[in-house]
Amino acid sequence: MTRTVYVNGEYLPETEAKVSIFDRAFLMADGVYEVTSVLGGKLIDFEGHQKRLERSLNELDMKKPAAFDDLIEIHRKLVELNGIEEGLIYLQVTRGAPGDRDFAFPDPETTEPTLVLFTQNKPGLADNPTAKKGIKVISIEDIRWGRRDIKTVQLLYPSMGKMMAKKAGCDDAWMVEDGFVTEGTSNNAYIVKDGKIITRNLSTDILHGITRAAVLKFAREAQMVVEERPFTIEEAKEADEAFFTSASAFVMPVVEIDGATIGTGTPGDVAARLREIYLEESRKVAV
Amino acid sequence: MTRTVYVNGEYLPETEAKVSIFDRAFLMADGVYEVTSVLGGKLIDFEGHQKRLERSLNELDMKKPAAFDDLIEIHRKLVELNGIEEGLIYLQVTRGAPGDRDFAFPDPETTEPTLVLFTQNKPGLADNPTAKKGIKVISIEDIRWGRRDIKTVQLLYPSMGKMMAKKAGCDDAWMVEDGFVTEGTSNNAYIVKDGKIITRNLSTDILHGITRAAVLKFAREAQMVVEERPFTIEEAKEADEAFFTSASAFVMPVVEIDGATIGTGTPGDVAARLREIYLEESRKVAV
Repeated sequence: MTRTVYVNGEYLPETEAKVSIFDRAFLMADGVYEVTSVLGGKLIDFEGHQKRLERSLNELDMKKPAAFDDLIEIHRKLVELNGIEEGLIYLQVTRGAPGDRDFAFPDPETTEPTLVLFTQNKPGLADNPTAKKGIKVISIEDIRWGRRDIKTVQLLYPSMGKMMAKKAGCDDAWMVEDGFVTEGTSNNAYIVKDGKIITRNLSTDILHGITRAAVLKFAREAQMVVEERPFTIEEAKEADEAFFTSASAFVMPVVEIDGATIGTGTPGDVAARLREIYLEESRKVAV
Repeated sequence: MTRTVYVNGEYLPETEAKVSIFDRAFLMADGVYEVTSVLGGKLIDFEGHQKRLERSLNELDMKKPAAFDDLIEIHRKLVELNGIEEGLIYLQVTRGAPGDRDFAFPDPETTEPTLVLFTQNKPGLADNPTAKKGIKVISIEDIRWGRRDIKTVQLLYPSMGKMMAKKAGCDDAWMVEDGFVTEGTSNNAYIVKDGKIITRNLSTDILHGITRAAVLKFAREAQMVVEERPFTIEEAKEADEAFFTSASAFVMPVVEIDGATIGTGTPGDVAARLREIYLEESRKVAV
């Protein structure tokens, strides 16, 4: 089935969905994005993603292309048109397509932002069998730019990291800077030691994960101890558990890091419980 | 006049030049580029730009979309179709547009690279009056990713740097990392002290400028002393001259850095002479 996608006010077949070669995202990576999960046909953490989108746009002096109500409407219409029960909605905003290439930002009065949305159908997303066996990661140096708190489309290095992991027979890469883990290629990283959940504190060094915020809130509500601080790969290898969180994978156990088995080599209890709580609570407030 | 541009084998009016929303450059900044100058209707340093393009593609495991002869043909046809006497030709190669978004690279057997070229008409490029008065720069922190030797489209920060310079009433920004100047937002940086030309040595920290290589070669041939090493903003402020090189500005004097006047506050002799030699020698071998 051909997907229907959204480009600047129009609902189009995916094969006809195009943007100008002068679009700032194409020429200069001048764009930001969000990925929202769909479970039971409803949007998970929609408000959190919208707030982060606004923050990303503000940090880059970029205009918001549509109001909250319009954006939720577009999300819902895409879910409906593409019959998504479980899956993802990808949204990208760029600084638009001025008539030519220039390092200077175009005048926002005359160049409208570009707005693109499309769905990815993922039946079985919540019951992902991978969550029952866990994934393997390698560590790589984090050489990304310094503002990872802004969710830009500058994803070449994370993409290269995913390929390095694949080549090593693993699923993902955790990035390390100045000796400490920053995050995964498209997710936040955690370890569990003596019952304590340890994850890097928020700063410009990492993405401010929407799923991260929700999971930590649920963990604290369940009386779990959370320590927000950087940790090393060595510490991770000695941990009882490891896992990551993201909007599309929710809570995903990590059972091997750089060839070292974590804990028993199977998903840990804390990760399993957090996944369960996150899915349950998120479904309740899905829109 | 509507420009004629090139997109994947077709010559099109610029208003119809589009790429898929699934193009890897649009979604993930997974693309590289080159800018070649045109003087007297001929291509400057074409071979150098082609060699660097091949290097960028190799570093990213990306396929070259066309052979050298085909690429020079496209460049020449665009020059002719758009009547360019003086100006630029921009070329971008991306990892192509697979049918969906995924961090993993698409299979190169089924996803062809995207090739886009367009011209920018710049009458008076060689006689740019700015070269007679020089430009003003500010210094900013260099927070770009670690592989600046690969000419990717991850240009958001250089673009932000250009805006910071504009806000400060200046023309460009020199980026500083660990106390030393790396380069300008889209050019290589130089100072001159006691007759010596000082510019940062090549590494993954800076772009391997094609104009840089040519200018240093001409400088050495003219018996000038060249020192390839990092320098600080403080050292630059005390220099006799400062300038930058790029494919589109050739050799451009810098007369103010962070509000401090460089030398006499007018373009220096070394920069002026190098600009003259570069333009003269490059025209001789233009194709």
